[in-house]
Amino acid sequence: MNFQLQEAIELLQRTPKTLENFLSGLSAGWLQCREGEGTWNATEVIEHLIEAEKTNWIPKLEIILQEHGDKTFPVFDRFSHLKEHSGETIEEKLRLFQELREQNLAKLNHLIGPETDFEWTGIHPAFGPVKLRELLSTWAVHDLTHIAQIVRVMAKRYKEDVGPWIEYLGILKK
Amino acid sequence: MNFQLQEAIELLQRTPKTLENFLSGLSAGWLQCREGEGTWNATEVIEHLIEAEKTNWIPKLEIILQEHGDKTFPVFDRFSHLKEHSGETIEEKLRLFQELREQNLAKLNHLIGPETDFEWTGIHPAFGPVKLRELLSTWAVHDLTHIAQIVRVMAKRYKEDVGPWIEYLGILKK
Repeated sequence: MNFQLQEAIELLQRTPKTLENFLSGLSAGWLQCREGEGTWNATEVIEHLIEAEKTNWIPKLEIILQEHGDKTFPVFDRFSHLKEHSGETIEEKLRLFQELREQNLAKLNHLIGPETDFEWTGIHPAFGPVKLRELLSTWAVHDLTHIAQIVRVMAKRYKEDVGPWIEYLGILKK
Repeated sequence: MNFQLQEAIELLQRTPKTLENFLSGLSAGWLQCREGEGTWNATEVIEHLIEAEKTNWIPKLEIILQEHGDKTFPVFDRFSHLKEHSGETIEEKLRLFQELREQNLAKLNHLIGPETDFEWTGIHPAFGPVKLRELLSTWAVHDLTHIAQIVRVMAKRYKEDVGPWIEYLGILKK
């Protein structure tokens, strides 16, 4: 096991700014391209990250930390962001993600203290008991999986364009 | 085909700053972790990107653009960065990558003009004739493939830590 709270926070702090640097001001061709029907473009991934900041990580954390009551997490709809189409620009969405992440890291800092036991559990509707350290590790890896997704989707836009070099570019074969 | 020079440049301009935001100040645990024996950690990926800025992209571009002489590219050693171990910090390496990229984009801007034909070719030692537009597309996708690699390597450090959530985290199964 490698989880350490401070190292997980290092990643969580960096994601919004990293994505802002990468995506702000990009042409629509990059922001709107997809791997195929029913897959997400970069803009939709940011909307999903915003939704998870609002309704997924901190609510689950609070359920694990509460002393009494039902420890079962409500079901998180991973596709809810696709139901609303807001007119905001990518820059506005990235700013909102950054703000929500900062607020959530402040909450995390407030909720977790020296007495917190990272083995404490909540009940995941599909998996059963899950530990606090698993939730926090997943939050960090969830960021990474979606950065990788955005990068892969954009790379594939040039799948034909790279010609024979596709041989050396593993990302295009996934 | 999707290649457009200005859109490719948009990506090439963003990579150094994106990686700086992501990697600067991270703990050694993140910067030194690997997927396994013989694979690159994040620091080694940055060294490889620096090496490619120095000896790969612009020299190939110049060979394609030259009017006379041998159009065969010299062999690029993709592993040469592993032979020298410099004592620089990750922040210094990221700064060097940024400087070299800026210089190379200035050269690109100088070398490519309205008369340039993106169908012009050079001879790749393994692939045979390759086009200018394939070289430039590959340069951009090469950035993306290495961003994805860094993100994947770091995610896998938490492969055990996420517990049952591995089910939803495709990046950990690659």
